[in-house]
Amino acid sequence: MKLIRNPNQIQDLSLKLKSKGKRIGLVPTMGYLHAGHLSLVRRAVKECDVAVVSIYVNPLQFGPREDFKRYPRNLKQDMLLAKTAGADYVFAPGDTDMYRGEFLTTVGVDKISSILCGTSRPGHFTGVTTVVTKLFNIVLPDISYFGQKDAQQAVIIKKMVRDLNVPVAIKVLPTVREPDGLAMSSRNAYLNRSQRQDALILYKALGRARCLIRQGERNPRKIISVIKRLIQRVDSARIDYIDIVDAADLSSKKKITGKVLVVLAVFIGKFRLIDNIALRV
Amino acid sequence: MKLIRNPNQIQDLSLKLKSKGKRIGLVPTMGYLHAGHLSLVRRAVKECDVAVVSIYVNPLQFGPREDFKRYPRNLKQDMLLAKTAGADYVFAPGDTDMYRGEFLTTVGVDKISSILCGTSRPGHFTGVTTVVTKLFNIVLPDISYFGQKDAQQAVIIKKMVRDLNVPVAIKVLPTVREPDGLAMSSRNAYLNRSQRQDALILYKALGRARCLIRQGERNPRKIISVIKRLIQRVDSARIDYIDIVDAADLSSKKKITGKVLVVLAVFIGKFRLIDNIALRV
Repeated sequence: MKLIRNPNQIQDLSLKLKSKGKRIGLVPTMGYLHAGHLSLVRRAVKECDVAVVSIYVNPLQFGPREDFKRYPRNLKQDMLLAKTAGADYVFAPGDTDMYRGEFLTTVGVDKISSILCGTSRPGHFTGVTTVVTKLFNIVLPDISYFGQKDAQQAVIIKKMVRDLNVPVAIKVLPTVREPDGLAMSSRNAYLNRSQRQDALILYKALGRARCLIRQGERNPRKIISVIKRLIQRVDSARIDYIDIVDAADLSSKKKITGKVLVVLAVFIGKFRLIDNIALRV
Repeated sequence: MKLIRNPNQIQDLSLKLKSKGKRIGLVPTMGYLHAGHLSLVRRAVKECDVAVVSIYVNPLQFGPREDFKRYPRNLKQDMLLAKTAGADYVFAPGDTDMYRGEFLTTVGVDKISSILCGTSRPGHFTGVTTVVTKLFNIVLPDISYFGQKDAQQAVIIKKMVRDLNVPVAIKVLPTVREPDGLAMSSRNAYLNRSQRQDALILYKALGRARCLIRQGERNPRKIISVIKRLIQRVDSARIDYIDIVDAADLSSKKKITGKVLVVLAVFIGKFRLIDNIALRV
């Protein structure tokens, strides 16, 4: 496995690979890899001739008061993990390699970027779609892999790809969870022992929603109200949002039908965690 | 030469060509081809394995009161001209092939899109960068060709390509002019006989600016003032803007040095024409 830091270098390599008919798989990450990322890497290895993991903590997707500076980083460990999962290349540009000089261009997706996580993180998804466009242009993947944990991100990227005719297939793989149910996230590293315990409430709340829906409840407000009370019982928890939305366009459901997502974001102490489940009714 | 209307069809073809190492040249146009366009096509034919001319009157780059509906169209004649110039494919999507369903994604370049033509045509350049991104993703060119007549468009597209790492080389070719100096433009078809005569004032004004600069004048305001008076002598002419700007970033020059553009937009009757000259001082 090889580490490449320079965008032009990997773009040249990718152009060469593509001109020889090789299929490239890309797993875009912000590093501090966990089993969720690695499930994506293994899939890329399986389905493509060349598997690339990009590692870049993208400043553009963090708000001014967010955790850009303290976001966990460990390139050495990431390299080991990516290699073990079978990756051919790690593309890890330096902080200044991606936005040189006066950067003026943005790729934005209207409407679905300003709801849910977009409400408390304005500009976040425009940062994501802009950097993902850059990564696609640099690595030129045939397939790119994303995790279902970031459900809204996946829907937005799929919409961008469709709207702009981006020649990349988007595959979204299931959320990987800790044995106790907590969704894998690099940000879990922030949690102390009691917060780690409290963080389980996200999974428990989603489980309760699943139960209620399976038992026949079709009124989203009733379900949201139940899991809201459940979460509020945890002292360190503060709800950012809970919603039940259409899995395709993220619009709030008035009645639970078709393919839906139960989505939530909850602060545990000062750390904001997200999780979701998909259900077909 | 072959006509393709379906974006997916030409994208599949392009992917195949690229996987065989073929170099694709793209000339994006809104059709009603003239000698300016054809100079781009001939260059693409010369430099690439496969030359594609796209013809699409892009609704996204027209304001609500602009000339989208009456913009001249003649696909049959365009096909003949493109074939004569040596093009391999004309890609002419139908009106509804490019923006299907609820279209939410935009590619925008800040600052340089809201000056000069962007002042009187808000949203125009975002329409351009969005459709050009789509065309690049659909046709997958190695090189794309643009005319210097649309100088601001060329600067904006180059900036977008650099910012987003788009794997396309942008080549900007000289403005082609009628024997009397009028810059070739599909919109010249709007002009009646006397307006056609009056339209020459754009070229004359630029010629005067060139003279003054060659004679040593370095104060943009003095030059602008002279050519303003010159244009105002033509009854049917109404100035939209005149400026002398840096050729690389379009910033207004306070003193004429380096590579500059003299740029102007003038209404002749109700038809807005643009032109420019580049000078190195």
